[in-house]
Amino acid sequence: MAYFQSKPDSRRHFLHIPGPSNVPDRVLRAMDNPTMDHRGPDFGAMGKQLLAKVRKVFQTEGPVVIYPASGTGAWEAALVNTLSPGDRVLMCETGWFAHLWNEMAERLSIQADFIKTDWRRGADVEQIAERLAADKGHAIKAVCVVHNETSTGCTSRIDEVRKAIDAAGHPALLLVDTISSLGSMDYRHDEWGVDVTVSGSQKGLMLPPGLSFNAISAKAIKASETAKLTRSFWDWKPMLAANATGYFPYTPATNMLYALDTALDMLLEEGLQNVFARHDKVAEATRRAVRHWGFETQCQDPRHFSSVLTAVRLPEGHSANDLRATILSKFNMSLGNGLGQLNDRVFRIGHLGDISELQLVGALGGVEMGLRAAGIPHKAGGVQVAMEYLGGNA
Amino acid sequence: MAYFQSKPDSRRHFLHIPGPSNVPDRVLRAMDNPTMDHRGPDFGAMGKQLLAKVRKVFQTEGPVVIYPASGTGAWEAALVNTLSPGDRVLMCETGWFAHLWNEMAERLSIQADFIKTDWRRGADVEQIAERLAADKGHAIKAVCVVHNETSTGCTSRIDEVRKAIDAAGHPALLLVDTISSLGSMDYRHDEWGVDVTVSGSQKGLMLPPGLSFNAISAKAIKASETAKLTRSFWDWKPMLAANATGYFPYTPATNMLYALDTALDMLLEEGLQNVFARHDKVAEATRRAVRHWGFETQCQDPRHFSSVLTAVRLPEGHSANDLRATILSKFNMSLGNGLGQLNDRVFRIGHLGDISELQLVGALGGVEMGLRAAGIPHKAGGVQVAMEYLGGNA
Amino acid sequence: MAYFQSKPDSRRHFLHIPGPSNVPDRVLRAMDNPTMDHRGPDFGAMGKQLLAKVRKVFQTEGPVVIYPASGTGAWEAALVNTLSPGDRVLMCETGWFAHLWNEMAERLSIQADFIKTDWRRGADVEQIAERLAADKGHAIKAVCVVHNETSTGCTSRIDEVRKAIDAAGHPALLLVDTISSLGSMDYRHDEWGVDVTVSGSQKGLMLPPGLSFNAISAKAIKASETAKLTRSFWDWKPMLAANATGYFPYTPATNMLYALDTALDMLLEEGLQNVFARHDKVAEATRRAVRHWGFETQCQDPRHFSSVLTAVRLPEGHSANDLRATILSKFNMSLGNGLGQLNDRVFRIGHLGDISELQLVGALGGVEMGLRAAGIPHKAGGVQVAMEYLGGNA
Amino acid sequence: MAYFQSKPDSRRHFLHIPGPSNVPDRVLRAMDNPTMDHRGPDFGAMGKQLLAKVRKVFQTEGPVVIYPASGTGAWEAALVNTLSPGDRVLMCETGWFAHLWNEMAERLSIQADFIKTDWRRGADVEQIAERLAADKGHAIKAVCVVHNETSTGCTSRIDEVRKAIDAAGHPALLLVDTISSLGSMDYRHDEWGVDVTVSGSQKGLMLPPGLSFNAISAKAIKASETAKLTRSFWDWKPMLAANATGYFPYTPATNMLYALDTALDMLLEEGLQNVFARHDKVAEATRRAVRHWGFETQCQDPRHFSSVLTAVRLPEGHSANDLRATILSKFNMSLGNGLGQLNDRVFRIGHLGDISELQLVGALGGVEMGLRAAGIPHKAGGVQVAMEYLGGNA
Repeated sequence: MAYFQSKPDSRRHFLHIPGPSNVPDRVLRAMDNPTMDHRGPDFGAMGKQLLAKVRKVFQTEGPVVIYPASGTGAWEAALVNTLSPGDRVLMCETGWFAHLWNEMAERLSIQADFIKTDWRRGADVEQIAERLAADKGHAIKAVCVVHNETSTGCTSRIDEVRKAIDAAGHPALLLVDTISSLGSMDYRHDEWGVDVTVSGSQKGLMLPPGLSFNAISAKAIKASETAKLTRSFWDWKPMLAANATGYFPYTPATNMLYALDTALDMLLEEGLQNVFARHDKVAEATRRAVRHWGFETQCQDPRHFSSVLTAVRLPEGHSANDLRATILSKFNMSLGNGLGQLNDRVFRIGHLGDISELQLVGALGGVEMGLRAAGIPHKAGGVQVAMEYLGGNA
Repeated sequence: MAYFQSKPDSRRHFLHIPGPSNVPDRVLRAMDNPTMDHRGPDFGAMGKQLLAKVRKVFQTEGPVVIYPASGTGAWEAALVNTLSPGDRVLMCETGWFAHLWNEMAERLSIQADFIKTDWRRGADVEQIAERLAADKGHAIKAVCVVHNETSTGCTSRIDEVRKAIDAAGHPALLLVDTISSLGSMDYRHDEWGVDVTVSGSQKGLMLPPGLSFNAISAKAIKASETAKLTRSFWDWKPMLAANATGYFPYTPATNMLYALDTALDMLLEEGLQNVFARHDKVAEATRRAVRHWGFETQCQDPRHFSSVLTAVRLPEGHSANDLRATILSKFNMSLGNGLGQLNDRVFRIGHLGDISELQLVGALGGVEMGLRAAGIPHKAGGVQVAMEYLGGNA
Repeated sequence: MAYFQSKPDSRRHFLHIPGPSNVPDRVLRAMDNPTMDHRGPDFGAMGKQLLAKVRKVFQTEGPVVIYPASGTGAWEAALVNTLSPGDRVLMCETGWFAHLWNEMAERLSIQADFIKTDWRRGADVEQIAERLAADKGHAIKAVCVVHNETSTGCTSRIDEVRKAIDAAGHPALLLVDTISSLGSMDYRHDEWGVDVTVSGSQKGLMLPPGLSFNAISAKAIKASETAKLTRSFWDWKPMLAANATGYFPYTPATNMLYALDTALDMLLEEGLQNVFARHDKVAEATRRAVRHWGFETQCQDPRHFSSVLTAVRLPEGHSANDLRATILSKFNMSLGNGLGQLNDRVFRIGHLGDISELQLVGALGGVEMGLRAAGIPHKAGGVQVAMEYLGGNA
Repeated sequence: MAYFQSKPDSRRHFLHIPGPSNVPDRVLRAMDNPTMDHRGPDFGAMGKQLLAKVRKVFQTEGPVVIYPASGTGAWEAALVNTLSPGDRVLMCETGWFAHLWNEMAERLSIQADFIKTDWRRGADVEQIAERLAADKGHAIKAVCVVHNETSTGCTSRIDEVRKAIDAAGHPALLLVDTISSLGSMDYRHDEWGVDVTVSGSQKGLMLPPGLSFNAISAKAIKASETAKLTRSFWDWKPMLAANATGYFPYTPATNMLYALDTALDMLLEEGLQNVFARHDKVAEATRRAVRHWGFETQCQDPRHFSSVLTAVRLPEGHSANDLRATILSKFNMSLGNGLGQLNDRVFRIGHLGDISELQLVGALGGVEMGLRAAGIPHKAGGVQVAMEYLGGNA
């Protein structure tokens, strides 16, 4: 049985959801090595080596914790290790995933101030600054921002959030979700003064889902010593203790770690700046195609454009879900759906991870042919416009 | 790089820790298929099909929840979905893993009565009966038992625990950890009236670590409606809602699900009763070898012998860890270490999952040659004794 | 080490040479199963099953012989089993591969009449008819035609060759090379009265190189009984005898046979006519792009257009090899080089096997961007023209 | 579908035929990388690198030719490149494979003097010496010896054959088949003055079948310039020319070359002398078990014992084929059958390639339990005797 395609034919599937992204063959081959003894000497050697490499991708000198769990768990870990019941946090509703993180915080008995946006830009740094300035008593314990909103294709300026916190002289922790940006867009845990960076395996790291991460500042570790939220599986303490040796406190996801080790090699061999530039290029090409077709990108602020995905708004009266179904059925390509209030209004093109110019040209071709097949008015030629940009910058 | 062996040679590693167990080639090949859209139509079809199959392995008609997380998380899920802060539970200290589960309960602010054993037998059903009988006010909300103690090789009689609860007319939930037994030893969630069965992927299910499970009774679901412990990632509710469709509320560990689907096929093709009989046979052969060598098994009660692993006690003055290091270095075989109070006192032979007579003969051969190499007094011929049993029952 | 890409980056290679073609993941996963006993009962069962399936792809009821050797060997097999030293054959120089087959015949002491073409069309059926008519003494023992000339993208009309032989009332055998067409273009061994069809694994069958085939008519078998050319490895006789049982006379390429079995399943699941239509469509789209760019296809006769590859002629003064090097270096795509007299004059786009509309759009995008990067004058918009055709026929 | 086991269960198959041998996971993972352009720059780099490594395994500084064909083809290559029709050669009937090579020579119109043995020892060097001494006219063009007779487990002393040729002052070429010994037993192409060494992929090289080799001396190349036997596919000349660049004259078996590259790394990392010593040890242990059971090895001369396989003679009146069927059915292990005159009289235990002490103990356990299950009288305890030897030499 082929799990990965709906029809019994011989055509490779085009996976262009904004994650899970395409897993390179080299990573799949690493993952399917025989499982080994997670308490034996080889494991410790591998563990130490990959923890060193993973820190480079977070651009941190500090510790990174790896959970044998998907990304949602790492959100929970960031909260329960640093906060106590009833604590106030400041969150920014940049889109569906910010909304979900907010819901999680409330389920965990955290009080969240939730700054709204219109889902068409990143976090509103001015409002963050205002709220912090107003919080003279420092009741706000943490500011929580989604770096790359996978539901909208809007990226928040973490460096500016950091400056706003500093300008306010506020002691709040800065917690950032990079689940869909890490390894695809420039992200600097140390330089930007982030306290907890949350991430996952299935996007820029080019792995299947199943691993998640917290990169942790010294200030966050200190906060964890007094944080009172209930925690066991997500507790940093045994993780940090064990990681010094390359071992984990409970059974790690061994085969996913093989895959991680190889994916980190691939990213570091290419060079992180080259990886980021590659994503920036395909993203710009995508936006040019979208504009040529006559559509708006969901993200309206060029300073917040995502290099990971582009969410495209269809004209009123056209169903994004029907378009996606047409494209899947006729062209064997998966695109991302609109989430929450954007359901059926937008579709999302993932261009991350194992992405190249030609892969993108194929994907945009699928969108353009799909628009035609679905009868959605558009100006033909978007692929050509994308190619002009890509070819001129090869 | 070969992750799975310490030395650059051409010899297949013998992995005989009591889990993670050897992953069959067929399962590894399924796991390394390309990751697919977890919101697309193929995924739902796969999800429904594998949920139906996984229920057969738990021997339940009820729902099973699959977490993209390792087994420790499923322990936490069982507790946080059914209990409230300060609740009392009854636990049985059958060994190291029961101890860890108890520690987790306390971190989660549950009060656990902890029935001690000498770590050489399964749960003491009489004491459970007594405690429940004494609990006239029904303060005890749950009885928590480890079905197969991976640290000792002692199996608890869940059917008898059930009878004890019923005899006491006590309403406590029955929570059972089958992380190391499911798919290797007979286990009947419905027939034995278990409320939550906790399990993991990396033992009898023959997968890498990275998935875990809760099988859930109607009574447990009802309890979850009023349980007050904080929960978000582990919350059953969205999982149960989404599973009806074959989808998951947050990103599932797609490639591990491919592997699970294939492993379930293998178990069901062989027939669960045949799988159990195969494990029973290699376990009995192992115990005969151990006795012949002149050693005690850690488990003293034949009614509690595990078919998954055998923990072997070395004579005073001999180091089990040195023995394991010798065997790893000379014979390229990994064995399990002694945990907690058994550190260096016992070693553990895993004989589960992808295990056959010949694989076991090789493994026992490694132990016997290792005993000689390590200078530990023993009576040679244990392998021969095991073969007589295996050969006579082929 | 990643064998398949020259640069340490994370981008999937676009393999668009006219074979070896892209091997589907499902086939690669089948191929890497453990090697099994080629004399055991499982092997025979597999062998019989796959011989039955392979006959369907040749569209024959007769026997097919599978060699554990690459396609060149199957050319030799066709000749040495049917001919004697000094025998005359009629060959058609449709391009480089016909030329190589001719060279081989001469090395094997066969006298070949070699009908020339300008390498821009398939076999000249009229000339074949004339030569046969002139051969009153029936000195010509075989007519040898390449069905799809991989060097030029010209397909010969085997049905018409058959008619010409019949019209001449000539007893010559008809030997046809389908190495690059089988499984991609309609080919009918029985209906077209072919005596020996030669093929290989690495093109339409979507396998790595390493297997080759002879489909054999009753007349060819009869000829083999008196043919005197020296043969041992390539001898049909023990192959035919053993194949009835599913076994092979000497060690078969077991893992390649796993791959073949799976690839045959994929082709038959899709349906051969659907597979052929898919190839026809991408080929027509490619030719439209080429014409739009302002180039000629090497093949000039529309009745001979290949659905497997398109050879493109560059304007005088431009180097096809430089273009290919630019495209490989900038866009990570491999294209076929010009062979023999076409070296540096043409490049060849493979669009066969695991080929889809979107994969083709990506590939054509790479060509168009490469033309620009290499400074070769062309009219932009070829990809768009291809998409119009593909999208209108989805 | 699992191709590699007859029953739908979860037990790893024990493959102990004398080849194809077990393919290590690391090799299988290399083999299933995407096929690449065999005319692109990466291929040439890989080709050169692996040709350099393969020479080390033949212990030669000279050229090695790699055929995309199984081992039988390399036999043919050795003959057709060095001999002319009617040439006389001296062959030694050491067993079934020597017999097959002899048959091939005759089909190729070579006259072979065939020195008989009783199939219980290697080539009779004295008789070779006598025949050469008697051949004053130097009519004998080549001496052909099978290094390791896979049908009997007898190894011929190639160094002594060399000395005999030299002592006779005879100019005959020395052609040696190492299909089942290369990479498992010490073999020195240059030091022993061999002119053509024939080998294959599926034994000591730990690959699936599908590649074969000729290592070629300068004297053999010179002979090829005048040799008149018809040849095309097997012709050394284009192979030698192309190999200097890392490319091949016709399509190579790309994925098998990936596998070869990795297998060579494994052998060279372990160290050839260590590999040979590992095989010597398991072979001696096997013979001790066989003697203890009360059986004869087919090979009677200790100087000719093979380290690759052991052929075991059953007492009169017992069927080796029934025994093998019992072992396959009850213990999921494949053993080699008796070939030719040894059919049903012997069974063969392969202990080569990816073989370890524990793997062998398991395999011998399967034989001993199988003997009991089949009701064949033997003295129990052979496995124990083998372990005493292995354990004492760990």
